[in-house]
Amino acid sequence: MMLQKKEVKVTETGKKRLSQIYVVAAQFFCNKGFDATSMSDIAGAVGMTKAGIYHFIPGGKKDLLFAVMSYGMDRLDNEVIAPALEIADAERRLRSIIINHAKLITGNSGPNGHNPVTIVVDEVAGLTTMQLQKIDKRKRAYLDFIRATLRQLEEEGKLKEVDVTVAAFSLLGMTLWLSRWFRPYGRLSSEQVAEEISKIALGGLLRPHARLARSA
Amino acid sequence: MMLQKKEVKVTETGKKRLSQIYVVAAQFFCNKGFDATSMSDIAGAVGMTKAGIYHFIPGGKKDLLFAVMSYGMDRLDNEVIAPALEIADAERRLRSIIINHAKLITGNSGPNGHNPVTIVVDEVAGLTTMQLQKIDKRKRAYLDFIRATLRQLEEEGKLKEVDVTVAAFSLLGMTLWLSRWFRPYGRLSSEQVAEEISKIALGGLLRPHARLARSA
Repeated sequence: MMLQKKEVKVTETGKKRLSQIYVVAAQFFCNKGFDATSMSDIAGAVGMTKAGIYHFIPGGKKDLLFAVMSYGMDRLDNEVIAPALEIADAERRLRSIIINHAKLITGNSGPNGHNPVTIVVDEVAGLTTMQLQKIDKRKRAYLDFIRATLRQLEEEGKLKEVDVTVAAFSLLGMTLWLSRWFRPYGRLSSEQVAEEISKIALGGLLRPHARLARSA
Repeated sequence: MMLQKKEVKVTETGKKRLSQIYVVAAQFFCNKGFDATSMSDIAGAVGMTKAGIYHFIPGGKKDLLFAVMSYGMDRLDNEVIAPALEIADAERRLRSIIINHAKLITGNSGPNGHNPVTIVVDEVAGLTTMQLQKIDKRKRAYLDFIRATLRQLEEEGKLKEVDVTVAAFSLLGMTLWLSRWFRPYGRLSSEQVAEEISKIALGGLLRPHARLARSA
């Protein structure tokens, strides 16, 4: 409740400014570390005064970390979960989840070739217990969404004999690992890598005849 | 060269003591963070004096981080790469790599259900440039070993049409992600999870007819 009260009502321009602050903050947290980054570092990099940045982030660095993580989860909601929810067919839904999550990580890249906002979601040591619980709840909801899609495939006889939970975490592992190795302007584009990962994952999880039947 | 000179010749008992120090240090680095951990923390947890621990690790905390990482890479060499090198058949070799790497992460677990030594390999910010290069070279050699196995499968017509590099990183991603989610005494044992991951990965990478031909 305290957090809600502290939040600032912002205009569209303000929202853009906030997104910019989150992306820059995430870059600092990833490269310099959360502890070593100061609010002045971030203010300087976005061309604001320290007072200016506190106008947007009244709670300071600890609230900024939570805001950046929440922003990363919002992007996951908007760019991965929302489009997938529109797809009734479980195989197409699973493919959409993998492709869009891969693109969220590799597209719109920072200087290191990945979207820092999607990585800083791991920097949990700097959060309060309540903030950590909120982020964990959203991560868990995403995992459950993937598992529900796999269960639907299982019920339809399209899933190979694999454990649904191991399968869901394996999908997440191979997708999230992109942040460690994908480099923009490399041999493969963000789209090509997303397609390859989707091909490997679906090949590992779906029965060949189910997929042949679909394409027939 | 300086590093070599600083190293201490140790007996078998000394080696066991060193392994114990590495595992405890890795647990502290993972849970409390590298910066926040002191040599006294580690000495206390292994029941040594601060002077005692400096006898084993004369270079202090920075050398200890490198030593822990090198120990993690040694375990990868001994428990994953060495057994795989003995296997001429590429499909069996790939399976051995996945199973043994998964077991290295989930087996012999610390209190959080994973082998901390295998995770701290990521805590690279605390290394000197030369130390970082040494660790990176070993990681790269492991990646190249996986890629060579995949290329052999490709030449034998057993690999699906997938990009070898994306495939290698996807394997690593799903295996290394185990450290984030596997819990000992859970529904699935270390062995069962390793089998499931191997099944998903091989299913995603190998042509079904190649695998059927083998089992015929």
